[in-house]
This record gives sequence, structure tokens and C-alpha cells, in this order.
Amino acid sequence: MTETAPRPTLEAVAARAGVSRATVSRVVNGAHGVRASLAERVRRAVEELGYVPNQAARSLVTRRHDAVAVVVAEPETRVFADPFFALQLRGISKELTAHDCQLVLLLTEGRDDHARVGRYLAGGHVDGALVFSLHLDDPLPGLIRSAGVPTVFGGRPGWSDGTGDVLHVDCDNRGGARAAVRHLLALGRRRIGHITGPLDQTSAVDRLDGFRDALPGADPDLVVEGDFTPAGGERAMRALLDRCPGLDAVFAANDLSASGALRVLRERGLRVPEDVAVVGFDDMLPVAEQTHPPLTTVRQDIEHMGRLMARLLLRRLAREQTGQDPQDAAPRSVVLPTTLVRRASA
Amino acid sequence: MTETAPRPTLEAVAARAGVSRATVSRVVNGAHGVRASLAERVRRAVEELGYVPNQAARSLVTRRHDAVAVVVAEPETRVFADPFFALQLRGISKELTAHDCQLVLLLTEGRDDHARVGRYLAGGHVDGALVFSLHLDDPLPGLIRSAGVPTVFGGRPGWSDGTGDVLHVDCDNRGGARAAVRHLLALGRRRIGHITGPLDQTSAVDRLDGFRDALPGADPDLVVEGDFTPAGGERAMRALLDRCPGLDAVFAANDLSASGALRVLRERGLRVPEDVAVVGFDDMLPVAEQTHPPLTTVRQDIEHMGRLMARLLLRRLAREQTGQDPQDAAPRSVVLPTTLVRRASA
Repeated sequence: MTETAPRPTLEAVAARAGVSRATVSRVVNGAHGVRASLAERVRRAVEELGYVPNQAARSLVTRRHDAVAVVVAEPETRVFADPFFALQLRGISKELTAHDCQLVLLLTEGRDDHARVGRYLAGGHVDGALVFSLHLDDPLPGLIRSAGVPTVFGGRPGWSDGTGDVLHVDCDNRGGARAAVRHLLALGRRRIGHITGPLDQTSAVDRLDGFRDALPGADPDLVVEGDFTPAGGERAMRALLDRCPGLDAVFAANDLSASGALRVLRERGLRVPEDVAVVGFDDMLPVAEQTHPPLTTVRQDIEHMGRLMARLLLRRLAREQTGQDPQDAAPRSVVLPTTLVRRASA
Repeated sequence: MTETAPRPTLEAVAARAGVSRATVSRVVNGAHGVRASLAERVRRAVEELGYVPNQAARSLVTRRHDAVAVVVAEPETRVFADPFFALQLRGISKELTAHDCQLVLLLTEGRDDHARVGRYLAGGHVDGALVFSLHLDDPLPGLIRSAGVPTVFGGRPGWSDGTGDVLHVDCDNRGGARAAVRHLLALGRRRIGHITGPLDQTSAVDRLDGFRDALPGADPDLVVEGDFTPAGGERAMRALLDRCPGLDAVFAANDLSASGALRVLRERGLRVPEDVAVVGFDDMLPVAEQTHPPLTTVRQDIEHMGRLMARLLLRRLAREQTGQDPQDAAPRSVVLPTTLVRRASA
């Protein structure tokens, strides 16, 4: 399997069908104006010989590969450790597969490799790209723009391309965070801390804004930056308890950091929710159900967001292919609502 | 970011550098025989304009993309649920990144999509492929062969391409299984059951052969087919206990199915290892350390196997590129040793 097996050529197909090379090429590339009986002969020859058109050559004409790249702007270790990405990929995979479109996941060891990802995207190997988990100083958006591939982003972009037309899918991070904190206030909690996500991501910034909406003028000591991981949640929870021993509630920017916070509270002998109430974000299952106690959290439908990203991109590609103006009645960015899910932790 | 941004063309670079289109093309494609001062001017123009050569066009000449596809012949749900794949991908990713080679993971919803994977591989988008978790009736090997891309397989292939030269990396599945069962015999166990993996995979077949090597003429009732998942391990363990109530040991073909078997034994009130000793396979961490009790198992270095797969492929590609006969002093398939790791379960 390691040597290059001889592949049937266009010439071989032409000879078998008894037509010219140009005719085969036109049939293979879906051009019109080939007589039906000839086209049928070519198709039969293609099938009999198992001819696979060289897509590299074909793409010069059609620029269509029926493949979409997915880039998660995180090292592969995080892509596989955080179930958020698996859920979003599940939605994307289902939608692309339903359209017989190949999902091409471009993995990296980290941000240093993003220039290479940009080269692959620019290389004409995919029709479009879905990009998520961007950090603000990441060069990817610029690389993608010069690659010239239609792209849909997961999460509100933290930059502008000047046209205001960066297609994206997001959830109502700010409104969801506001609802979480208001729920804690309604429970009578008065010293409410916040474990943020990494503040170079718009989802984390928007959730922090929602926290501040509900608690204007909150003590800055009550906000500690986390990184959306359980270990980051543990670190931030320890810092919060050291700074504010009278803390009676915590809003964590995602369920994984909430799970870390719960472990530290148990370790310190604090009861949840009696001493400290905890609310997360995501409603990531099974995480949110398996914490002790089960987690009250803000639900967003992650798999559905993945589906919508893929759907938006496929519609844009279809409009471009049929020559419709992509600006006219084009698909628009989507912001999905969130809902508070009450379990035992608050 | 959604519209196709104008991309600087070869013509623009030629105009900027004050040279012909052909000269730019030769410099960009790394051809020799361009005067150094001219080449330098072209390179400067390429950089100033942010020109990215169209790889689709370039690949027609060079057939090099510095990208390698990885295909796991399982649905994406299993790829993300089984840590085995994350570990193997980790090794592959480290090795490819060290060579500035892009890892292109082709995800699918299942076997029905493998024809599309074959088309992507045949399309000239990657230099080679790494393929693992193949099942015996999968059409992928045939599709890959007609795609003509150099390939390294993870796991002994269950077919022959006629040349006996299917490059692969595997561990000593049969020897490891034999050692596991001999360890149970040495502990004085006499009614030893086996939970196999899916028997359309050579790793599962080889481990079953190792079990039979150590226990020739074993009662067929003592062998139940699993599927390498915890749920499959539970089902198989229940079947074993129903058939052979006097069972005093189990060898499970991987750690995930051993973890399912341990849950069923606990459920039935059987003590491990006092009543039933259990041995797994993989030494998958943290799984093997976090079972109750911690698992005695056969260790294989999964991440290292991933690295070796990538290394073998890159060497083969380098030989082809430099025009060396790939058969002569070529890299050879590798079978890695296994070791028994003793913990509390046997």
C-alpha cells in the first residue's frame, strides 16, 4: 500500500470511450454542451476503469472539493480533553455528512502552527472553513482573510473586517451570565464571586459583562480569571476564598471550571449550596449532572451551534456557486438564547 | 471574512518584481536556474504582497503539500470517546508538527462515508495517509490503494496487497495476551474467561490467539466477544458469569472493557481479585489507575506507536521525493514489545 499504484488517466478514459480528451474533461467537470449519448459513454468508461479525476487539476476549473475545514484554535491536547469541542464537532459532522461533504479537521500543537493552517486553507484543498475558540491576538483571522476562503466563526469575533459581515454563530453569553447572577441574588446571596474564562476570548468577556450588568460596582477582588479548565477553576476558587472569606456564591464561566471550584469548596469543608452556592455555564453533560452536588448552570445547545455553523457555511457556498450575490438575502449570523437549568448547587 | 477576498496573483508578483510570470512560477516552485538576484526580487515581492501560491496549481508540478491525512476507521463519536485515539493522535501530531507538516484528520459518521474519504485522499490534497482502527470488511484499503497515496497503517493489516509490503506499526498483541493469561495461571486461577475485542479487527484476533496459546483447548463458553467499550465489557462480563458461575479470572482485551467488567463484578458482590482476578490490555491512563481496584494490565506505548507511524511515513515520503528506490533499504514495519504492569486486580 506504500507505493504509488498506477492510476487510470484521462487518456485511458478517452480511449475506452472513443472520444477526445477534451470531451472527457468536460463531462468530468460537469460542463454542459456534451451530447447525452457521448456523456453516457464517458461515464461508463469512468466507472469501468475506476477513474478518479485529479481534484488538484479539477479544482483549478471548478474550485469545488466538497470538503470543509474545521479549525479549533487550541492545541490538540485541549481539543481532545474538553468535551465542548467534541460536541461542537458532532453537530458539524452530522450536518456536513448529510450533504456528503468531507470534514477536514486541521490539528495543531498550538498557535505557532497557525501560519501553516493558513497555508493549507489558502492551498485550495477545501471550499470553506469553520473556525472556533479564537483568542484575540491570534493571527488566524488575518491568514484566513488572505486565504480567501468563505468562513463561519464559532463565537462573536473580537475584531472587525471592516464590512461588519463576519459570519458567526454564538449564544447569548451576556444575557445568560446576567440570568445566572440574578438567580443568585434572588436566593439572597450578597458576596458573589466570578471565575472568568480566558479574557482574550469574547465568550469570556461577554460573560464577565453579564456578571457586571447584574452587579454594577462589584468589588474587583470578586473577579478572578480562569481558563475554562477544571484545574483553572480550582486555582481561581482558592484565590477567591483567600481574598473574600465571606463569599456566599460563585458564578463560574463554564461547567468545567465550576467542577474544579466545587472540589476546592469540598476540600475546605464548605457546604454547597448552604455555605456557597455555585452556578456554571454550558450545561455540559455528563459533567453538570455528575458533580457533587449536581450543577445549576446556564444551558447553551453546543451541538446545535455546530450544526448551524455548518449550515450557514453550506448556504453561503451554494449561493456563491450558483452565482447569486452573497450579500443579497444572504444567511445572517445567529445568536442563540440560553436558559437557566436548576439543579442542586444553587 | 465570508466573501472571497481578492488574492494577490502571480501576475501582480511578476509586475512588482519586474520579471516574467514564468520566472515567478519557477522561484515559487523551487526550481533551479533562476539568477540569485532575480530570485531575491521575486521573494521580496511575494512577501510584500502577501502572495500565497495556489497549491492546487503548484501540486500539479510538485505533488507536495506538506500535509498528511489521518483516518480513524470509526465514527467521530468513538474517536472522541475512546482515549486510545487521542493518545495515538498526540504522538502523530507531535511528530508531524516537528516536521512542519499539517495533520489533516478526516472525520466521518461511519463506514458509509469511507468512499468520500477515499475521494479526498485521491484528490491530491495530502502527501500521504496514516490509517488506524481498520475493520476487516472495510473498503478503505482498496480505496487508498487506488488513490495512490503512500500509507502507513496502525495495527497489522488483515489483508495482503500482494507485495507483502504494507507498512504498519503494531504491538505484540499475541505475546502480550499470552503473558496476561500465564500470569493468571501462575496465580493459581483455573477457570479463566476472555472478553475479546471486535473480532473483525486484527488486534482483537491476535489477543484471542494469545489467550488460546496459553490455554489450548479452553472451553469455548469462556470466550465472549466485546467491542473495546466499557458497555461492551459489561455485557460480556454478564454473559460470562451466567455461563460459567465458577469463573475465577478474566482477561479483557482492553482496559475500557475491563473497567466495564469490574463494575459488573462489584454489582454481583464478587471481590476482585479474591473471587475473580482481572487483567486488561493497553495500560491506558488514567483509566487503568482509577478503576476499583486499580487494574493489572498489558502495557503498550500508544503515543509512541503514533509517533512511529508518522516517522515511517515521513521517511518514505522523503525517499520518494529524493528519487531513491522506496524498496531499497526502505523503512520497515515495526512491532513493539509489551510488558505486564501489576496493580491490585490480579
